[in-house]
Amino acid sequence: MRYPVDRLHRFVVAVFTALDVPPEHADITARRLLEADLRGRTGHGLIRVPQYVPRIEQGGINVRPDVVVRRSTPVSGLVDGDNGLGQVVMTAATDQAIEKAEASGMGWVGTMRSNHAGAAGVYTGMAVERDLIAIYMAVASANVMPPWGGQEAILGTNPISIAIPAGEEPAFQLDIATTMASHGTIKVLAQRGESMPEGWVQDREGNPITDPSRADQGFLVPIGGYKGSGLNMAIGILAGVLNDAAFGSDVIDHRAVPGAAANTGQAIFVMRPDLLRDLDAFKGDMDRQLRELRSTGARGAVHIPGEGLDRLEAEIRSEGLAVGDTLVGQLQALASRFGLDDDLAG
Amino acid sequence: MRYPVDRLHRFVVAVFTALDVPPEHADITARRLLEADLRGRTGHGLIRVPQYVPRIEQGGINVRPDVVVRRSTPVSGLVDGDNGLGQVVMTAATDQAIEKAEASGMGWVGTMRSNHAGAAGVYTGMAVERDLIAIYMAVASANVMPPWGGQEAILGTNPISIAIPAGEEPAFQLDIATTMASHGTIKVLAQRGESMPEGWVQDREGNPITDPSRADQGFLVPIGGYKGSGLNMAIGILAGVLNDAAFGSDVIDHRAVPGAAANTGQAIFVMRPDLLRDLDAFKGDMDRQLRELRSTGARGAVHIPGEGLDRLEAEIRSEGLAVGDTLVGQLQALASRFGLDDDLAG
Repeated sequence: MRYPVDRLHRFVVAVFTALDVPPEHADITARRLLEADLRGRTGHGLIRVPQYVPRIEQGGINVRPDVVVRRSTPVSGLVDGDNGLGQVVMTAATDQAIEKAEASGMGWVGTMRSNHAGAAGVYTGMAVERDLIAIYMAVASANVMPPWGGQEAILGTNPISIAIPAGEEPAFQLDIATTMASHGTIKVLAQRGESMPEGWVQDREGNPITDPSRADQGFLVPIGGYKGSGLNMAIGILAGVLNDAAFGSDVIDHRAVPGAAANTGQAIFVMRPDLLRDLDAFKGDMDRQLRELRSTGARGAVHIPGEGLDRLEAEIRSEGLAVGDTLVGQLQALASRFGLDDDLAG
Repeated sequence: MRYPVDRLHRFVVAVFTALDVPPEHADITARRLLEADLRGRTGHGLIRVPQYVPRIEQGGINVRPDVVVRRSTPVSGLVDGDNGLGQVVMTAATDQAIEKAEASGMGWVGTMRSNHAGAAGVYTGMAVERDLIAIYMAVASANVMPPWGGQEAILGTNPISIAIPAGEEPAFQLDIATTMASHGTIKVLAQRGESMPEGWVQDREGNPITDPSRADQGFLVPIGGYKGSGLNMAIGILAGVLNDAAFGSDVIDHRAVPGAAANTGQAIFVMRPDLLRDLDAFKGDMDRQLRELRSTGARGAVHIPGEGLDRLEAEIRSEGLAVGDTLVGQLQALASRFGLDDDLAG
């Protein structure tokens, strides 16, 4: 079932305002969630609405946070999210990092007492639209993996996104979890009843698990073994420990404990490319390099991060966003419970 | 055969000064190379001396470079290495990034017209010693891999290093290539006559190659498939394209074309942790988190980047550095050719 993006936006705003989220915050959250869907990051889009609702209802998320800056220099900031919706807190952090980069060349802004903020690429995307380079890192909202060689899952999928502007070519936009698969992707497969490839999840004895509904019985596998495990820790430290946010066993599973504050940490670094090189020359060279990368394989075969995002967004805006039956059912239940005008029927 | 580190340092300085490298530059280069060996990054240590020599002799490396800053702000710099030894250029860049971070909170310094600079962790190590966070990225000095889905090798092993200070625990120090294996590691296996595990190198049809001497006939494999491929591109863009340094097909194989200037690019970002959090609180929390990570497995089983580096260095300084027969032979040939006082015999 496909729905117009504007209709889904109004629906999500209605859900959150019914839960006493201020309209401006509901609007930001709906935007960031749907931007994830528009980028094909389905696991971090609309599918998260039914997960956030119990956290709000049980007090795990503060709907009227006082988001404040705890530390600030011309090039850095620490945002205390007061346990608000992650999209609201990270949007504030991203706005500040962009402002600092435009004024001082670069800006690093960390968050503490934040929450799950959805797709990493949504935030770097806000910067790259303004011809800025951006790097985003986050402590994921559940532990799914031991450090390499360990047996207790105290690390999350800790994602990183790197966005770099180009000229006529689509901007380079990487958005990856540092595990072979992300929890969101696995959830989508589970909802669709599809199986996982080997190498995504393994049990304690190292045997592959391919049934996504059994993913919780095993550990996620990091990219590149000890390398991805180390990169995952570095991301968790820079986005978490450095901000006095949760890391390791302090990270709660935000869905399993909906009433508990998560103290999620994120970090975003934004930089002006013209610190190093004239912007137009850089963008022209980016075009040349991206075209060369694309030319190394058959048409459409080469995976260049960010390529196709514009086309996908245009297609979804024109044809509507496809929403699976399970999710439609969950959203309709919310509409009924909150007495919303639009129950997504028809 | 084991040699005292000081003796090897004098030997390397003697080789480079025999080639008209100024004593100060020879000293810096010898230090950085041996620091790689002291960290167990054998592929980027002494083994590189016989590779640099023909590049110097054939004009691929400029022994008396005028290393200058092309662009500079309080938080950024672009270093033009004038085709000098990579260790000399990157040491200058790192010193500047540290200076900027100490004065302004953070510093991003890129290099152009640099050369192979050895182990990534050596440069972040210089910053972490001063309680600073550092991230280093480099365009590797040979293309070994196509972008994911492509068929032409126009990407290198593009490494990243991330170093983060701790208190009583060893600093966190990640130093990884974004391929499953690095060229340096493969060279060491080849010299030792050992084979590679499957998954490091594959031929054009995707079949594994396990003989390290046949590695040139295949492509290296990125960590995590399209994820590592994307991360590799991001590193190459930020360390190369952003600095007007070589990327893609502009990268030459520095060993295969010893007479050609490489225009190698690197980037280092250094940041003061106390921008976000009191230094002592941060370091204390790092200790706690590193201990927790270690506690998730049997003694010595958990891979925590940076752990064991101090012990390894102490052991090598006390017992001497083990140098393989092939390399000893190559170094002795250089000693004989340049008429050095020490020919590493006995």
